[in-house]
Amino acid sequence: MIPRYSLPEFTELWSDCTRYGIWLEVELAGCDAMEQAGLVPRGTADKLRAMKLELDPARIEEIERTTRHDVIAFLTHVEQLAGEPARWLHRGMTSSDVLDTSLGVQLVRVCELLLKQCDRLIQALSRRAAEHVATPMIGRSHGIHAEPVTFGVVLAGHLVEIKRGKQRLERAKQEIAVGKLAGAVGTYAHLAPQIEARALASLGLMPETVATQVVARDRHAAFAAALALLAAGIERLATNVRHWQRTEVGEAEERFARGQKGSSAMPHKRNPILSENLCGLARVVRSCLAPALENVALWHERDISHSSAERMFLPDATSTLGFMLERAAGIVEGLVVYAERMRQNLDRSGGLFFSEGVMLALIGKGVARQHAYEMVQRSAMRSFEGGGRFQDLLAADPELGTLLAPEELARCFDLEHALRWAKEIVDRAIQQ
Amino acid sequence: MIPRYSLPEFTELWSDCTRYGIWLEVELAGCDAMEQAGLVPRGTADKLRAMKLELDPARIEEIERTTRHDVIAFLTHVEQLAGEPARWLHRGMTSSDVLDTSLGVQLVRVCELLLKQCDRLIQALSRRAAEHVATPMIGRSHGIHAEPVTFGVVLAGHLVEIKRGKQRLERAKQEIAVGKLAGAVGTYAHLAPQIEARALASLGLMPETVATQVVARDRHAAFAAALALLAAGIERLATNVRHWQRTEVGEAEERFARGQKGSSAMPHKRNPILSENLCGLARVVRSCLAPALENVALWHERDISHSSAERMFLPDATSTLGFMLERAAGIVEGLVVYAERMRQNLDRSGGLFFSEGVMLALIGKGVARQHAYEMVQRSAMRSFEGGGRFQDLLAADPELGTLLAPEELARCFDLEHALRWAKEIVDRAIQQ
Amino acid sequence: MIPRYSLPEFTELWSDCTRYGIWLEVELAGCDAMEQAGLVPRGTADKLRAMKLELDPARIEEIERTTRHDVIAFLTHVEQLAGEPARWLHRGMTSSDVLDTSLGVQLVRVCELLLKQCDRLIQALSRRAAEHVATPMIGRSHGIHAEPVTFGVVLAGHLVEIKRGKQRLERAKQEIAVGKLAGAVGTYAHLAPQIEARALASLGLMPETVATQVVARDRHAAFAAALALLAAGIERLATNVRHWQRTEVGEAEERFARGQKGSSAMPHKRNPILSENLCGLARVVRSCLAPALENVALWHERDISHSSAERMFLPDATSTLGFMLERAAGIVEGLVVYAERMRQNLDRSGGLFFSEGVMLALIGKGVARQHAYEMVQRSAMRSFEGGGRFQDLLAADPELGTLLAPEELARCFDLEHALRWAKEIVDRAIQQ
Amino acid sequence: MIPRYSLPEFTELWSDCTRYGIWLEVELAGCDAMEQAGLVPRGTADKLRAMKLELDPARIEEIERTTRHDVIAFLTHVEQLAGEPARWLHRGMTSSDVLDTSLGVQLVRVCELLLKQCDRLIQALSRRAAEHVATPMIGRSHGIHAEPVTFGVVLAGHLVEIKRGKQRLERAKQEIAVGKLAGAVGTYAHLAPQIEARALASLGLMPETVATQVVARDRHAAFAAALALLAAGIERLATNVRHWQRTEVGEAEERFARGQKGSSAMPHKRNPILSENLCGLARVVRSCLAPALENVALWHERDISHSSAERMFLPDATSTLGFMLERAAGIVEGLVVYAERMRQNLDRSGGLFFSEGVMLALIGKGVARQHAYEMVQRSAMRSFEGGGRFQDLLAADPELGTLLAPEELARCFDLEHALRWAKEIVDRAIQQ
Repeated sequence: MIPRYSLPEFTELWSDCTRYGIWLEVELAGCDAMEQAGLVPRGTADKLRAMKLELDPARIEEIERTTRHDVIAFLTHVEQLAGEPARWLHRGMTSSDVLDTSLGVQLVRVCELLLKQCDRLIQALSRRAAEHVATPMIGRSHGIHAEPVTFGVVLAGHLVEIKRGKQRLERAKQEIAVGKLAGAVGTYAHLAPQIEARALASLGLMPETVATQVVARDRHAAFAAALALLAAGIERLATNVRHWQRTEVGEAEERFARGQKGSSAMPHKRNPILSENLCGLARVVRSCLAPALENVALWHERDISHSSAERMFLPDATSTLGFMLERAAGIVEGLVVYAERMRQNLDRSGGLFFSEGVMLALIGKGVARQHAYEMVQRSAMRSFEGGGRFQDLLAADPELGTLLAPEELARCFDLEHALRWAKEIVDRAIQQ
Repeated sequence: MIPRYSLPEFTELWSDCTRYGIWLEVELAGCDAMEQAGLVPRGTADKLRAMKLELDPARIEEIERTTRHDVIAFLTHVEQLAGEPARWLHRGMTSSDVLDTSLGVQLVRVCELLLKQCDRLIQALSRRAAEHVATPMIGRSHGIHAEPVTFGVVLAGHLVEIKRGKQRLERAKQEIAVGKLAGAVGTYAHLAPQIEARALASLGLMPETVATQVVARDRHAAFAAALALLAAGIERLATNVRHWQRTEVGEAEERFARGQKGSSAMPHKRNPILSENLCGLARVVRSCLAPALENVALWHERDISHSSAERMFLPDATSTLGFMLERAAGIVEGLVVYAERMRQNLDRSGGLFFSEGVMLALIGKGVARQHAYEMVQRSAMRSFEGGGRFQDLLAADPELGTLLAPEELARCFDLEHALRWAKEIVDRAIQQ
Repeated sequence: MIPRYSLPEFTELWSDCTRYGIWLEVELAGCDAMEQAGLVPRGTADKLRAMKLELDPARIEEIERTTRHDVIAFLTHVEQLAGEPARWLHRGMTSSDVLDTSLGVQLVRVCELLLKQCDRLIQALSRRAAEHVATPMIGRSHGIHAEPVTFGVVLAGHLVEIKRGKQRLERAKQEIAVGKLAGAVGTYAHLAPQIEARALASLGLMPETVATQVVARDRHAAFAAALALLAAGIERLATNVRHWQRTEVGEAEERFARGQKGSSAMPHKRNPILSENLCGLARVVRSCLAPALENVALWHERDISHSSAERMFLPDATSTLGFMLERAAGIVEGLVVYAERMRQNLDRSGGLFFSEGVMLALIGKGVARQHAYEMVQRSAMRSFEGGGRFQDLLAADPELGTLLAPEELARCFDLEHALRWAKEIVDRAIQQ
Repeated sequence: MIPRYSLPEFTELWSDCTRYGIWLEVELAGCDAMEQAGLVPRGTADKLRAMKLELDPARIEEIERTTRHDVIAFLTHVEQLAGEPARWLHRGMTSSDVLDTSLGVQLVRVCELLLKQCDRLIQALSRRAAEHVATPMIGRSHGIHAEPVTFGVVLAGHLVEIKRGKQRLERAKQEIAVGKLAGAVGTYAHLAPQIEARALASLGLMPETVATQVVARDRHAAFAAALALLAAGIERLATNVRHWQRTEVGEAEERFARGQKGSSAMPHKRNPILSENLCGLARVVRSCLAPALENVALWHERDISHSSAERMFLPDATSTLGFMLERAAGIVEGLVVYAERMRQNLDRSGGLFFSEGVMLALIGKGVARQHAYEMVQRSAMRSFEGGGRFQDLLAADPELGTLLAPEELARCFDLEHALRWAKEIVDRAIQQ
C-alpha cells in the first residue's frame, strides 16, 4: 500500500486512526450486548460514547512498546482516557474478539469501496460497448488475424468478466462479514452465543459458526481469491489495450494528457503506460493470494502467524485493486478509438477470414470436410504469400468453380452477415 | 496426476479415451442442434450414434503428428471410421467449440466426483464431532495451553470449514458449467445463439455470455481457487492431526495398520505420515492457482498459452484433491482418540486456564481491569514457574482473599461450566 | 510430467525402474564404505553386484501396500532376490539416507540433461544472432516504435539471458549434488562421517554439512528457483516470437511444417503455437517454486510433508523444462526471418526515431534540454499525426533552421551510424 | 514495507529522498564519463556537485503530475535548481539509464544491509550452537521421538542453512550490481560502451551485457529468489522455536520481556509470538517471487509493467527480510534453553530410541534384518504401550537373550556413544 497506488478513501480506511476507532466501536457493541445480558452495568456504553474519546495512535504504540500486545495497549489507553466505566469493556472477551470482529467491519467497508469502483468500470465498459456495437474489427487468435468481430463485442467480453468479478466479490463480502465474541478459544466460557449475536448484528456482521480463538482464515483466503480474480480480469483488459495501441496495430489508444511526455529521449512517443502499470499491479494483487492461503492452516485454536502477513497484504491487495479499478475505468472512458484504422487492418488480409464460409459452402455442396479444407487452403496460402486477392484466386480455381456459382461465392464475403449477432451479444452483456 | 495420488475414477475421467469420447458427444450434440436448424441433414447424428464408433487414441495422435492440430486429427479419424455422415460434423464450429465445451463437461463431472468425496469427509467429521462433543481437551493458542475446549468442538470447526469449501466448489461448478458453440471468434458467424443454447442444454451446460474463441479463463481460475481453498482446509485438519500425534501431546493418532512399519531404523515409531502427506499435497494443489490466474489474460480473441498449462494443472489439481479428500475422510474415520491423555494434558497446568474467570470475578467486584490482571498474573506466574497449585496460591493471596470468598473462587474453577456451550456449537455445525 | 511435454530421456530418468536402480547403487556404495570400515564383511557389495539383480517395481509396490513404507518394501524385495548378503545392506542407515542420496544422484543427472539442452538453445541463439547482427529492425518500448536495433542484438539479449540461466543451473547443481549417510537424525549414531564421505564420493556427491534426517530442503528450493528462472527466460523469448509473428508485425515466424494445420476453421492461419505453448509451460514450471519453498520449513529433524510434493513437482518441473529448452531451440533454429518486412516497419515512422539525435544536436548547439525537447516534439507530433515527413518538417522549422545546417540535420538521420555498436554487442554476447 | 516491520536504515534507503539523490549521482557519473569522451564540457559535473543541490521530492512530484514522467520531472527540477550546467545532464541517455542504474546502486546497498544482518544471525547461531554442542535432546521425525541429538547440532543445522542463504544473496548481489548507459534501446546510439563502462565503474556496477531499454529482469527475479530462500530458512528456524516452546515440549522459549503480556485474557501465557510473526513475514517475502518472475518476460525492448510491481515488492521484500533477520538474531541470542526439560523429554521413551542399535547388534550376530526388526519391534511395541521398560523387556526376551549378552545389550543403551560425533558436526558448521 504505497501512496502512488492508493486512493484516499482506502488510505483513510486502513489508517491506524480508523482501526482504533473501529476497535472502540466493537468494544462498545460488546458492552451494549453485555449490558442487556446483565453482565455489565446498564448505561456503561452510552456513558463512554458520550465522552467522544479522542484516541491517540501514537500513545497506544508507546504503551505497546512495553506490553508488546496491541489490544492491551489499546485498552490501557482507553482506561487512561475514560476512567472507571472503561474497566467494564472487553469483559470475558479475548483480544481476537476485538481484532477479528474489527477486521470484519473493515473488510466489509473496503468491499463496499471496491464494489463502487467496480460499478464505475462496468458503466464505462457498458457505454463504450454500446457505442461500438457495430464497429468492425478483425478478431485475432494467436495474435493472427482470424475472423471479424466488432469492437463492441470485444468490450462486452471484458464487461461480463468484470461483472463476474464483482459478483465474486459480493459473495466474498458475505463470507467475510463475520465476527466473533466467543472468548479465548471460541467456547463462550465467560460469554454466550446470544451476546455475540446481538453485538455482531449491531455491527452488520454474522457470528463465526465455529470459532477458534479467531475467525477461520479460509474466509480471508476466499476474499483474497476474489481480489485476485478481479485483478486478473483487469489485466486482460489492460493487456488488450496495450495490443491495440501497438504502433503497427494502432486501433485504440489511452488518452494522452496535455503536457504528458512519452519519453525523455523520444518526443513523439505515446505509450500505453497506464495499462502497462495495471498489468504490473495485477501481479502484485495476485501474489497476495499465496500468503492468504498459507494462513489458513493455523495451529490448534490459532497461532498468530497470519497476523503479520495480513497487516501487509490486506491493505496492499485491497487498496491496489481499488486503484486499479479506478484507473481501468478512466482508461476505458477516455479510450481513443480509431475505427478507420480498425477497418484498414480488417481489410489487409483481403478477406482471407471468409475462408471458413467458403469451406462451409463447399461442404454444403457435398464436398468432404478435409477436401474442402484443402481446396480453400491452396488459394488462401497463395493469397497469404502475396499471390493475389483471395476471392479472385478462389473464383479462378477450376475445381471450386464447378461447385460454387459466382453469386454463391460472393455471399460468403459479406461482412454484415458475419457480424449479424453482434447487437444481441452486446445487449445480452449489458443487460445481464 | 501420478498414480500414487490419483483415485481410479479420476484417472478414468482424465484419460484420452474419455476425452475423445466427450469430444464426440459434443460434436453430436452440435449436430443435433444443427439438424433442427436445418443446417445439417436430419438423422445425421443418430446415424453416427448408431455406429458406436470405437475411437482409437493412438491413431488420433498419429494423425496429429502430421497436422499438429488435435481437433483436426480427431475429425480426420472420425471421418475415417464413419465415412460420409461424419463430414457434417463440426459445421461452422471452431476447434475451441469442441474443446472448451468438452472441458466444461469434464469439469462438471470432476466436480461431481469431488463433491461426493466432500460428503464422505463431512460425514466423518460430523460423526466424530458428535462422538466427542463432551470430551474435554486443552485449547491451545500459539501452541501454548489456553483454556479448555472439547474435541468435538475442534472437529466441528474443521467440519464447517470443509462445508464452506464444498459450497465454494458448488458455486465454482456453476461457473464452469459453461460451453460455447459460437464459432471462430465468438460471433456465431456460421451458427446462431439458438443452436448453441440447444446443443449445450443437452450437455447440461450454459452458453458463455460473451465468448471469444474460447470460454473466458477467469471461470477456470475461479474453479482453481475453489480447489485451493478446499486443499487449504484439509491442510489445517492434517496439521492438527500431526500436532495431536506428537509424542509429547499424544491426544490422537492415525490408525496404524497391521504390518505397517514406521521406520526402517526405529521399530517402535508410529508416524502421522498420512497427514504429513496431505500437507505436502495441499502445497501442490494450491500451487495450481498461480498458472490458472496467469491464464486469464489471453490476448485478443484468445491465444493458446492456457492450453499447455491446463493440460497439466487441471488433472493434477482435481485428482490430487480427490485423493486428499478420500485420505482425509479415512484419517478422520479411523482416528484413534486418547481421551484420557487429553485429560492429563488438560490437568497439567493446574487450572491456570481458569485465570480469566478469576480476573472477571475480580472485575465484577469492582477491581480495575489492569489491576485485576496483575493480581491474577502474579499467582499465575508463580504457579507456572512451579511455585505451587494455582488455586492454592490465589487462595493464599491476601489482597485477593479480601475480595473473593472461597466459594466464589471455587466457582471459577468449574470445568463443566466452562464447556457448557459445547453441545450447542457442535449441533450448530452439524445442522448447518 | 505428461508424455506430451516430456522428452524420453526425462521419462526414463524419472521412471520407477531407474529410481529403484539408483537406490540399489546407493545401498551398494554404502556397503562398500562399510566394508572398508570393517562394519560389513568384505566382498558383500561385489557379491551383490555380481548377481545383477533384476528389480521388479510391481513387486516392490505390492510389498509396500502392506508395509506402507517404500524403503522397507525395497529392502524386503532385494533380500527376497539376493538372500543372505542383502541382510548387510542398509546397516545403520535410515530410509532417508537412501532416498535423499538417490535423489541427489537423480537431480545431478537431470541437471546434466538440462544443461545439454541449454547448450543447444545457446548455440541456436548464437548462430542466429551472428547471422542477423546487421539486420535492422525497429526497437519497441511499450509496444511502440522507439529507435532502431538489429535483430542480432535482440537475439543476443536472449542469448545472454539463457547463458545466465544456465550458469544458475550449474550452481544449483552443485547445491543439490549432496547426499547423506548420517543415520536416523543426522548424528552418525551407527555410522561415521568417513563412511559417508567415502560412499558419497563414489556417487559423485558431497555430504550434507549438517543433516537432519534428511538433506536440507533449501537446496531443493534453490534448485527449483534455477528452473523457474530459466523457464522465465524462455518465456520472454517465446513472448517475443509471438509478437514478431503477429499479423501486423510479421517480422519473423515459426517454421510451418508440411501438413500442419493452423485452424480447423481458417485454412490460411499460421499461428505461433509452439511459442504460445512455451508461455503456458513456463507458468507451470514457475509454479513449482511455491511448494519447493514451502517444503523448506520441515519440523524438527524432519517431517515427510515434502515428499508427496516432490514426487509431483520435481519430475514435472524438470521434464517440462527439458521439453521447453528443446522446443525453444527448435523454434530459434527454424525461425523464418522477414528482414524486408522489418525494414518496412522500420521505415513506417518516417524516421521519427531519429528525434533524439536531433534533440542532442540542438543541445550541442547550446539549446536548453526542455526547449530542445519541445522544438523536436512539435514536428514529431505533426508528423506522427500524418502532417508530413519528419525530416522535412524539421527542415522547414524556422527556429531549428537557424540552429542546424542541412548537413547537420542529415547526419542525424543516418541508420548505420545509429547501429554502429551492434557488432560489438553481439560479439560480446557470443564470446562471454 | 510498513513501519512496524521495517528497520530505519531500510526505510531511509527506500525513501524518495535517497532515490532522487542516487539519480543525481548517476547523472553526474554519466556526465563525468561524457566529459572524458568530449561530449560534454569539462567541469560540468564538478560544477553541479559544488552546488550541493537540495532536491525537493514534493516539487518533483508536482511536476510529474503534469508530465506524467518521473525522470523528466526530476530533470526539470534539477534544471530549475541548477540552471545552465544541468542542461548537459542526461545527454544521449534514456530514462531507464538513470532508473535502472540507480536501482542497481540501491539494490547493492540494500544487499549490504542484509548481509550485515545475516552476519549477526550467523554469529548468534554459532555462539549458541557451540554453547549447546553437548546438550542432549531427543531428535524428532514426523513430530515423533526418534533418536537423540544435541541442541547444538540442531542449531548448527540452522546455522549452515543461513550461511547458504547468505552465499546465495552474495551471488545475487553480483547479478544485480549492474547498470546501463546504453540509451533508448540498448544500442549506444548517442553513447558508447566505453562511456557506460567508465560511468558504471565509478558507481561500483558492471554494464548489462546486452541491454534492452532496461537491465534484464531475470536478474531481479534471481535476486528475489535469494530473498525468498533466506526467508524460508528463517521460517524453518522460527517454526522450530514455536515447537520447542509448546507447553508439552517446553525445551526452549523466547525471552519474555518485563512488562510484556501474553494475552489479554490469560495472564500466565508466554507465547512464541516473535517466531510466529517471522513465519507470517516469511510468507510475505516468499510471495514477492511470483511477480518478480512474471516481470521477466517484458515485451520487445521493454514494457513498463515491471515498474509498478517493483515499486511495491522490492522495498517490501528487502525491508521485511531485514527486519526478519534482526528479529531472528534477537530470538536466538535471547533464547531461554531448558536443558533439564530436554533431558526429561529424552528419557520419557525409556530408551526406545536405542532400538536401532539393538537391531544392528542382532544383525551383527547374523540375524536376518527383517527378523531382527521384528524381534526388536515386539518389545518396543509393548514398552510403547506401557508394558514396561524397553531395556528390561529386551533382556527378558528369551530369543534375544540367546543372542546378546547383558553387557552387549547395555552397550546399545549408551547415550554418549550415540552423540560422539556432535562436536565434529558443530565445528564443521561453524568453521565452514
